[in-house]
Amino acid sequence: MSQVQPTNPYIQRLSRVRTAMNIHGLDTLILTPGAAMRYLTGFNEPAFERLLAVIVPNDDDWLFITPALNAGQVRENPAGVVDVRMWDDADGWEKLVHDVCIDLTLDIGIIGIDDDMPARFALKLRDLMPTTLFKLAGPALSELRVTKDTLELASMQHAADATDTLIPHAMGACQVGVTELEVALAIQKGLANTGAESSFESIVGAGANGASPHHHTGKTRIKRGDVVVLDFGAKVDGYCGDITRMVAVGEAPDEAKRVYEIVLAAHDAALAAVKPGATAHDVDAAARKVIDDAGYGEFFIHRTGHGIGLDDHEPPYIVAGNYTRLVPGHCFSIEPGIYLPGRFGVRLENIVTVTEEGLGREFNQEIPSELPIV
Amino acid sequence: MSQVQPTNPYIQRLSRVRTAMNIHGLDTLILTPGAAMRYLTGFNEPAFERLLAVIVPNDDDWLFITPALNAGQVRENPAGVVDVRMWDDADGWEKLVHDVCIDLTLDIGIIGIDDDMPARFALKLRDLMPTTLFKLAGPALSELRVTKDTLELASMQHAADATDTLIPHAMGACQVGVTELEVALAIQKGLANTGAESSFESIVGAGANGASPHHHTGKTRIKRGDVVVLDFGAKVDGYCGDITRMVAVGEAPDEAKRVYEIVLAAHDAALAAVKPGATAHDVDAAARKVIDDAGYGEFFIHRTGHGIGLDDHEPPYIVAGNYTRLVPGHCFSIEPGIYLPGRFGVRLENIVTVTEEGLGREFNQEIPSELPIV
Repeated sequence: MSQVQPTNPYIQRLSRVRTAMNIHGLDTLILTPGAAMRYLTGFNEPAFERLLAVIVPNDDDWLFITPALNAGQVRENPAGVVDVRMWDDADGWEKLVHDVCIDLTLDIGIIGIDDDMPARFALKLRDLMPTTLFKLAGPALSELRVTKDTLELASMQHAADATDTLIPHAMGACQVGVTELEVALAIQKGLANTGAESSFESIVGAGANGASPHHHTGKTRIKRGDVVVLDFGAKVDGYCGDITRMVAVGEAPDEAKRVYEIVLAAHDAALAAVKPGATAHDVDAAARKVIDDAGYGEFFIHRTGHGIGLDDHEPPYIVAGNYTRLVPGHCFSIEPGIYLPGRFGVRLENIVTVTEEGLGREFNQEIPSELPIV
Repeated sequence: MSQVQPTNPYIQRLSRVRTAMNIHGLDTLILTPGAAMRYLTGFNEPAFERLLAVIVPNDDDWLFITPALNAGQVRENPAGVVDVRMWDDADGWEKLVHDVCIDLTLDIGIIGIDDDMPARFALKLRDLMPTTLFKLAGPALSELRVTKDTLELASMQHAADATDTLIPHAMGACQVGVTELEVALAIQKGLANTGAESSFESIVGAGANGASPHHHTGKTRIKRGDVVVLDFGAKVDGYCGDITRMVAVGEAPDEAKRVYEIVLAAHDAALAAVKPGATAHDVDAAARKVIDDAGYGEFFIHRTGHGIGLDDHEPPYIVAGNYTRLVPGHCFSIEPGIYLPGRFGVRLENIVTVTEEGLGREFNQEIPSELPIV
């Protein structure tokens, strides 16, 4: 029945996910738009409030449920899923799901749903299938997605390369009197030139704003002597780049220069700790020790990094207590930081993978050895 | 214990939401970052994979749970919630939630969660509180949020005004050889000048791409004779603008001119149907009748509109079968469209509110009476 070509990479992923479903005791997956759906089917649409889902039974053909207005896009799904069932705004989606439940006898199984599925669907699906057990499919899917294959590593490199081309746009825009939003726009303009999308909303944090790790880029104008956090990324073929660079504008406070060197040393120590068999905990600890030893431990208020791929944040998380052992193909950020409230923050981030040769390899350009002054 | 000033508008909302909780049988609300949290507390951070939540018991003080790295931001929440409890990456959030459950005896009640809460939290919360019934809080919250008060209507007007200032940026960028992404960037640049955020990723659909209502803005270059869909919005103080305008580049196909006039007539008919006591269904039917009568009914493949406010899509949905009666303060889009596969699409959208005087009022500029050629 399938029109799929033998070279279709999604067929291999379907086979692997079914093995993972067996291991995790999941009879069926229901995934709404997001990274998991894209990984399995290549289908890539943003999530709306209307239900669009791929249903993957362990022992039957997979199918899509879609609002009528997305049906054309869904029919072109790269995985070649041919069973596409539509609902329209006037009828709503509950009846269609009910019919599919009966077709596939979903009422007597265990359904895995993607971790990002909004409660509006998760709770309603549960109400439609009161005898079905719902579990998070994240763990089963993560096992597949966490280890990138050769094609995926190439995409990660493309994303990093595109991200690196934005560095001069970002740094060049940092001038006295320019707003954070204008710097973000310069990054955006560089992105449009590459044709890549943004991995996430760029963070531009000038002066004291940089001391808040997830500061909202705003109308604050850069002042002379400001230390500016620049955190941005380009997404290529769905794979996310992510980088953080620092500049000081006009001049740099002495403590900022010193903090920069400490954070860079922490970054380098974490990178040196990356090897197959080491744990995520070890990598975090290596960065944290450098910052602790320098007396800034209380100002390093987040984990050292996060996995990255189709999601900009995904396993493996580089955090104390995560004893996951690193293997070749793992991709994650190393981004230690020191945040001095009311003054400035310094964070330095590259994306790294674990190689077969037993070393961490950075996808991004080397981090400058001293705080750049622009 | 509260440091709140008497003028704090969130105290009134807290009182109203507790009334709604009583009506809907909810003992406690748990809300993760998003529009519902912003509505109740003014707190506005994007959602991450870490749990950040406000917990609103019906009969006890409300409190925040936050990752340590967001604690500073959470403590400045506009509603003045003073009880802020932190967790850190090393310990995880489950233990803190467990302690809060015991404090507030959440295990014997009914908890309402926001419709947007990701399954990663919703299912884990359910597992942590197996004797608790979880329901969607959307219906209870919607009843409050759907009717905008005077302050909110002013914010909606500001958002529409900021959105309208982008029209010349969008139209002016539409030239032969320019990519859709470059047009989107021109809109983005106009936004940065206003200091407003974007309500959603701009949709620029040139030629046949415009026939897909939710086309992804891409690298397609505009050709002479292309009909271009421009759908964008500015967000001000959290409130979303949303507009769709059309241009033809160089010249316009005759059928596009005719389709434009039909869609505009459908828009005007829907607007004329807006009055207190009319239903959302009536407004949809008014637009649909015009397009049906013109022979294009099968190409109007979505509902006529969606409510808008802190979310760019929220109730009331202007869709067949929605017999919700319109009341003053309702705000929604009127955006009929005709989509001719492989050729072009035409959609025309303004945001409208229902006034006390019994008429629909458009927040946005009047729609041009003929398809603009640029």
